[in-house]
Amino acid sequence: MNKVHNFSAGPCILPQSVLEEASRAVVDFNNSGLSLIEISHRSKPFVDVMEEARSLVKELLELPERYEVLFLQGGATLGFLTTAYNYLPVGAKAAYIDTGTWASGAIKEAKLLGDVDVIASSADSGYNHIPKNIVVPNDAAYLHFTSNNTIYGTQFQDFPKSDIPVVCDMSSDIFSKRIKADDFAMIYAGAQKNMGPAGTVVYIIDKEQLGKTGRKIPTYLDLEKHISKDSMLNTPPVFPIYVSMLTLRWMRDLGGVDAIEKRNNEKARVMYNAIDSNPLFKGHATADSRSHMNATFMLNDESLSETFDSMWKAAGISGLKGHRSVGGYRASMYNALPVESVQVLADVMAELARVNG
Amino acid sequence: MNKVHNFSAGPCILPQSVLEEASRAVVDFNNSGLSLIEISHRSKPFVDVMEEARSLVKELLELPERYEVLFLQGGATLGFLTTAYNYLPVGAKAAYIDTGTWASGAIKEAKLLGDVDVIASSADSGYNHIPKNIVVPNDAAYLHFTSNNTIYGTQFQDFPKSDIPVVCDMSSDIFSKRIKADDFAMIYAGAQKNMGPAGTVVYIIDKEQLGKTGRKIPTYLDLEKHISKDSMLNTPPVFPIYVSMLTLRWMRDLGGVDAIEKRNNEKARVMYNAIDSNPLFKGHATADSRSHMNATFMLNDESLSETFDSMWKAAGISGLKGHRSVGGYRASMYNALPVESVQVLADVMAELARVNG
Repeated sequence: MNKVHNFSAGPCILPQSVLEEASRAVVDFNNSGLSLIEISHRSKPFVDVMEEARSLVKELLELPERYEVLFLQGGATLGFLTTAYNYLPVGAKAAYIDTGTWASGAIKEAKLLGDVDVIASSADSGYNHIPKNIVVPNDAAYLHFTSNNTIYGTQFQDFPKSDIPVVCDMSSDIFSKRIKADDFAMIYAGAQKNMGPAGTVVYIIDKEQLGKTGRKIPTYLDLEKHISKDSMLNTPPVFPIYVSMLTLRWMRDLGGVDAIEKRNNEKARVMYNAIDSNPLFKGHATADSRSHMNATFMLNDESLSETFDSMWKAAGISGLKGHRSVGGYRASMYNALPVESVQVLADVMAELARVNG
Repeated sequence: MNKVHNFSAGPCILPQSVLEEASRAVVDFNNSGLSLIEISHRSKPFVDVMEEARSLVKELLELPERYEVLFLQGGATLGFLTTAYNYLPVGAKAAYIDTGTWASGAIKEAKLLGDVDVIASSADSGYNHIPKNIVVPNDAAYLHFTSNNTIYGTQFQDFPKSDIPVVCDMSSDIFSKRIKADDFAMIYAGAQKNMGPAGTVVYIIDKEQLGKTGRKIPTYLDLEKHISKDSMLNTPPVFPIYVSMLTLRWMRDLGGVDAIEKRNNEKARVMYNAIDSNPLFKGHATADSRSHMNATFMLNDESLSETFDSMWKAAGISGLKGHRSVGGYRASMYNALPVESVQVLADVMAELARVNG
């Protein structure tokens, strides 16, 4: 079988060694004669998995003591609601930055519980950039933003300065570059980009900033309750957490976030150079907002798309179609994607220009 | 490696053929060269999995056209809240039957949204039976109960008669016996007993009974929204749904729910006979409320526990310890457990009596 260059936007490529170890655990976990997925989540072997996963997140992000890590369910979509329940006091308002579909989804859920001040938005320009010169109001309970926008291929280069607690949805760029995690009251991120398979969301929480809303919080949305049960309030999604743990190990063994960032910078350099140096293509996102995770681009001449599509498919590339709301192409370059795959795509783009330039 | 007789209370035993196929899919799904967990959930191969899983549930439960099937996240715990949001109108009351920990959890979440009338409870007798002669009030918006109570080993033998819509948490006995599914407005069940691994909950919904509460429902808790997106409102838990689909196929190929019920009846017969015929043991649940899924029992003489524990461990039995709130032993006999495993346990119990009787 030929190698597949997997540019899928998520669920997305995972390290081959992780897939192989996960596959073995599904039939025989730790030589127990039992599958990982048919043992009690309260058994020592699985509690060890959960604790190692939580601890690896702390290690990779260099989190201070006051931070807790949870692996919950419901996707970032449920996270939008959980955020408002845990950080928006009754009668207070929250500040949100609108950078596209997921940011808008977060705004919608927060509005169910209080006032939302959308302090910046790039909606008018098709979300092709990250708003600049954002002023965060001091009278809001918290600031929420989405660090990377998969659909549009935009990413915050620097985070907004804020004197109020900051909550960030980092679903599509967590663990992709060094961040100062302790600037955040909470970071949450769906696993299915840089960390593991679909089915779990990591929550990274400054526990000193919880418990201040005066709300009665439904059980599954109550972060303090989850923390008090060490992320085992109810049966956790065992397999997604196990594979996340293996991927976190892989990141650590690769040299941690700094080593990954270096790889990701190189992939982005090759990719954006392939777009900018090619007369047949143009990028969607403005240069100052370009994502290192998802490069969005299109052909200047749509009539070449059939030729281009057959060329990249022949090269073993998969998952390159753009999101329907932007069109064109999207090269998702999450942590597990090798530089080599980006080079294969760059070569196909150059070859298209050579033949049709 | 010796065969393990897996009596785990959940996550629990799954069919060996399912585990093997799932293991292969983690490295190479359908000979695509890609793992099941690194492809888009919107790709045809995964949409096919989701649709087959939904359709197998309909087939196994012989559901009429008006029913819809969803695979969501958050466990039954989030289901408790989802139930109240979708069926409890503002200002209305709901009727709940309290048969233990999970039923109480459901009551707690419903109370956040309205009045709850606990119309029957076995709390006073340590939840060792299912309340009898239950009268369901016609002025409640719906009736909620838990069909099987894993911790106590009790199970409804007949469902309460009701003129109001009925919602049932069947997490631990769905697909274990024939039921008249169209008596229910909604059935929900965590996958990790009879259907698959932890990480997804199946919702079986009479869609004609939705949309009547007048509430603004948060996005992830809105069953109508999930139905309108064919259970793909956001990224679904791909692996748990895939393994559930394989297990549903296994049930169908075994002859469906009737064939499974016959096997389960035989296991329960062997198990309860082993308890009742043995002078060293007594059951926890009253005979008229005994669960075919979880048999709870204890030694009359605690001093034999060390001997008994080493005997069943030597026989390759795992997961037999009772829940901490009941103590003693719990033999969970979910669908995938072979009759042979129950016989092995019964033999060990008889041997204990022979030596110490």
